[in-house]
Amino acid sequence: MSSKDQSSTAYPPEEKQLLLQRVLSYADDNVNASLDRLFHLLRIPSVSCDPRHAPQCQEAASWLANELESIGFDTSVRQTTGNPVVLAHKRQAIGPHVLFYGHYDVQPVEPLDKWRADPFDPQLKAQPNGEMQIVARGASDDKGQLLTFVEACRAWKTVTGGLPVSVSMFFEGEEESGSPSMDEFLDQAGEELRADIMLLCDTYLWNDAIPAVTVMFRGLLEEEVEITCASRDLHSGAYGNAARNPIQVLAELIASLRGESGEVAIEGFYDDVEEQGEELKSELKRLHFDADRFLQNVGLSQSAGDEAYSVLEQIWTRPSCEINGIAGGYYGEGLKTIIPSKAVAKISFRLVAGQDPEKIQAKFHEHIRARLPADCTVNFTGLGGSRASVIPSDSLYLRRARAALKDEWSCEAVLIGSGGSIPIVSVMQSRLGIGSLPIGFARSDNRHHSPNEKYDLSSFQKGIRSWIRILAELSSNETNRSRL
Amino acid sequence: MSSKDQSSTAYPPEEKQLLLQRVLSYADDNVNASLDRLFHLLRIPSVSCDPRHAPQCQEAASWLANELESIGFDTSVRQTTGNPVVLAHKRQAIGPHVLFYGHYDVQPVEPLDKWRADPFDPQLKAQPNGEMQIVARGASDDKGQLLTFVEACRAWKTVTGGLPVSVSMFFEGEEESGSPSMDEFLDQAGEELRADIMLLCDTYLWNDAIPAVTVMFRGLLEEEVEITCASRDLHSGAYGNAARNPIQVLAELIASLRGESGEVAIEGFYDDVEEQGEELKSELKRLHFDADRFLQNVGLSQSAGDEAYSVLEQIWTRPSCEINGIAGGYYGEGLKTIIPSKAVAKISFRLVAGQDPEKIQAKFHEHIRARLPADCTVNFTGLGGSRASVIPSDSLYLRRARAALKDEWSCEAVLIGSGGSIPIVSVMQSRLGIGSLPIGFARSDNRHHSPNEKYDLSSFQKGIRSWIRILAELSSNETNRSRL
Repeated sequence: MSSKDQSSTAYPPEEKQLLLQRVLSYADDNVNASLDRLFHLLRIPSVSCDPRHAPQCQEAASWLANELESIGFDTSVRQTTGNPVVLAHKRQAIGPHVLFYGHYDVQPVEPLDKWRADPFDPQLKAQPNGEMQIVARGASDDKGQLLTFVEACRAWKTVTGGLPVSVSMFFEGEEESGSPSMDEFLDQAGEELRADIMLLCDTYLWNDAIPAVTVMFRGLLEEEVEITCASRDLHSGAYGNAARNPIQVLAELIASLRGESGEVAIEGFYDDVEEQGEELKSELKRLHFDADRFLQNVGLSQSAGDEAYSVLEQIWTRPSCEINGIAGGYYGEGLKTIIPSKAVAKISFRLVAGQDPEKIQAKFHEHIRARLPADCTVNFTGLGGSRASVIPSDSLYLRRARAALKDEWSCEAVLIGSGGSIPIVSVMQSRLGIGSLPIGFARSDNRHHSPNEKYDLSSFQKGIRSWIRILAELSSNETNRSRL
Repeated sequence: MSSKDQSSTAYPPEEKQLLLQRVLSYADDNVNASLDRLFHLLRIPSVSCDPRHAPQCQEAASWLANELESIGFDTSVRQTTGNPVVLAHKRQAIGPHVLFYGHYDVQPVEPLDKWRADPFDPQLKAQPNGEMQIVARGASDDKGQLLTFVEACRAWKTVTGGLPVSVSMFFEGEEESGSPSMDEFLDQAGEELRADIMLLCDTYLWNDAIPAVTVMFRGLLEEEVEITCASRDLHSGAYGNAARNPIQVLAELIASLRGESGEVAIEGFYDDVEEQGEELKSELKRLHFDADRFLQNVGLSQSAGDEAYSVLEQIWTRPSCEINGIAGGYYGEGLKTIIPSKAVAKISFRLVAGQDPEKIQAKFHEHIRARLPADCTVNFTGLGGSRASVIPSDSLYLRRARAALKDEWSCEAVLIGSGGSIPIVSVMQSRLGIGSLPIGFARSDNRHHSPNEKYDLSSFQKGIRSWIRILAELSSNETNRSRL
């Protein structure tokens, strides 16, 4: 099957609108077949962090490749040092070229006893309110979400014989394990991934009724700090008072990282932070984010962050410093009266636009070293860093996607941030200069990474319809490549 | 065999001196037989913290009971809710009544691969300097040390048919596991343990050539502090900045426990501390303690304690606050970007004369509660407390013991402190009003609780000889009970 179709191009607007309606109807009429395919994929236990599941990861990749072949994609399964990547291309004569990214691997299922059914035996469950939910590991993250795009392409191809724009697909199988083979793969694949824009759907709706485009991801700097004092663990009776205690030292250092108002107290930490534009500021205000409820949902009543900023700003547009783990001495049952030789903390910084992970790392090391008391050594282990990603809110792709989403959802798609990171977004930006358009249909209660992960049937169905519309909109004659 | 002998009493001084020499000679001549008995005891793997070794603990108790029977003690093995206690009495017509305390259980042997030989196959190893060392688990702590006293009694009994003073023996089998059955046993045994003074040898020489009586033990207050913030672990991307981080909170609380000069910064912590007497102060000065070497031996160059006190004062006569362990969040390989729900620290206070564990506990709790930020709860788990013990330096028993030690070691026995605790010392004082005389012959390099634990043959031999002399000296006609 050819990878380049001449069909589905340059129709007059009315005809295009009719065509779109036909494609949408086809998707609706065939949603059960789409669901069958999703269930097939969900039955493959492609857990990437467990090497025993490598054959299943391979199986998921092959299945996806077959599906893409069947709708006219020029497809290959590329072996890596870890799980394979599925690459597929279907180029059209006109319109922009979009690259869709997703991952077919899933999180482990432990604790298994918390699942109400086998995590790899997907169930369609009716809720008391009549809504249907797809329950399985990967239902939402990311198998269900990635298939919304594949099924949108299938509908276009089946109805029109082609796609409205050139599409490449890029499915990896190690996202849930930190993508260890990705760098090497990108070195090899390089230009083959070049496109005008990357679409991805590993993100969320704003709420059940309002779609969202995630336009900000924080960067991440991860550090491990180990403090060593005495040359061995000491008896706290024999040495208590006299010997420097590395837990005490580490505690004092951690205490020094935050100021009284909740701000990060490392000198120069905020120097390069770029303030967000007025447009984005007003978009954020329009969200009417319920900070009290956000905190109450996890048992908290007030923010611990910098008082000068709203909670939404604190988690999306302000950098943070969090202690993710700490260990030292004896922490089993009862007490062991030692002064340990070492104590260690894992610390991560969420970075925002303008901040350079390397500069922040240097400032952090300087902060610690300057406060280190006598007889202590510090050992830093860098666990990696990435810059924040910001998608310009005036991008034409973004505007077209919002228009398509408005048609489907009957309301304006909001622009939101994510306090976390999707590494591929910053990697594609820095390596190939490709911007991203992250549009996902998951809900915040989808239990990603947790037992009884689910994806609402409406997310799946409206996700397919949304992509059908977005593909049409991106192909619009008005799309002026020079303005993108 | 009768438990009350009329022999070995009221000899004239010259005859007494001759008798003492005969007993000492007997001990020297029969040291190999003493050593054989020690090796037998060392071969019994009486590890008390591991229930699988309960039969071996029972075996060690029975073996000791047999040995004591064989030298005329009225002996019984008392079952407890844990490992048994060996109680044995041999009363004489005159002289004071001493109670000797020791323990037959030992520490676990892990890490086993660090031992140069089977820890329960005792070896006699010649050192390059010609000194002989007994290497085995328990060689010093406490099997070797407790047998010095048993063998001293054996020598007295064999040579003279009796003992110079009334002796009771009290060997427990759970010292290395925190003596969980002790309270109940003491409730039952009660008056049967009453004596004029308790002897024990779970302590150290000052150095290879200078014996010591340990006259100060610090008390101990053990606390576990758990801080809870959110109702579950949170994603540090989604909540970073806004959600209170319990590791950060715990670190700030720990930092608040110590002042800038190294003093404990809990309000009123030092209120009840009794200053040591002038006599003890001058005794401590006479020790010419080499603080630099003490610290250098464990890789440190300066004290972290209260600058207003010498290092020896810091570890013996000043109370401390040490963090023995801390844990929170993720501390495995790599990083897991969470804000944990909980963080926990184990904190112990070494207490000195005058300090009441309950009062200190209350002050500590108040200190923490007063500093707890919003949305945090604290849970304290008390792990137990004991007061400090001080043996009056003007006690006649102490003076007699020092005289005996001077005869054996040809130098004055020094009075020293211990930064740690021997709980039985304060328990016997508070329950039965019995003072203690802790005289041990271990060296600081005996590797207690560590692989390749050893006891110098000279410690064993001179230990036996020292007790022979101490028993003689305690029976002296000049011993005026009313002055004790």
